[in-house]
Amino acid sequence: MCEANAYVIRDGREELLMKAVDVVEPQADGEFRLVDIFGNQAFVRGRLRGMHLVDHRILFEAPPQG
Amino acid sequence: MCEANAYVIRDGREELLMKAVDVVEPQADGEFRLVDIFGNQAFVRGRLRGMHLVDHRILFEAPPQG
Repeated sequence: MCEANAYVIRDGREELLMKAVDVVEPQADGEFRLVDIFGNQAFVRGRLRGMHLVDHRILFEAPPQG
Repeated sequence: MCEANAYVIRDGREELLMKAVDVVEPQADGEFRLVDIFGNQAFVRGRLRGMHLVDHRILFEAPPQG
């Protein structure tokens, strides 16, 4: 399978957000919708830092806490 | 291998932009940098519409022609 794991950098630390991500869709409100291969959904607010598909990594960066 | 093919919708038509994409990195200027598994680079201006990793598809949408 060719899914990837999604991580988010929050307060300088990298957290695993979702495993086995199939779908990544930017939303109109600045969030990203993630769907894993089992159909579970998650949303992440922040910016996309990058994807490395061969390494199965998708990296987001959360906005700084206000 | 778990790379994907990148497509861009331009003037309503979907064009293949790059095959076997490994890395996708948003750039500061609104472009995306793509790197394939052979190390070739491409840049695309536009917005990310979505990624479907199990289908090996990354879809961008080019801005309308001015």
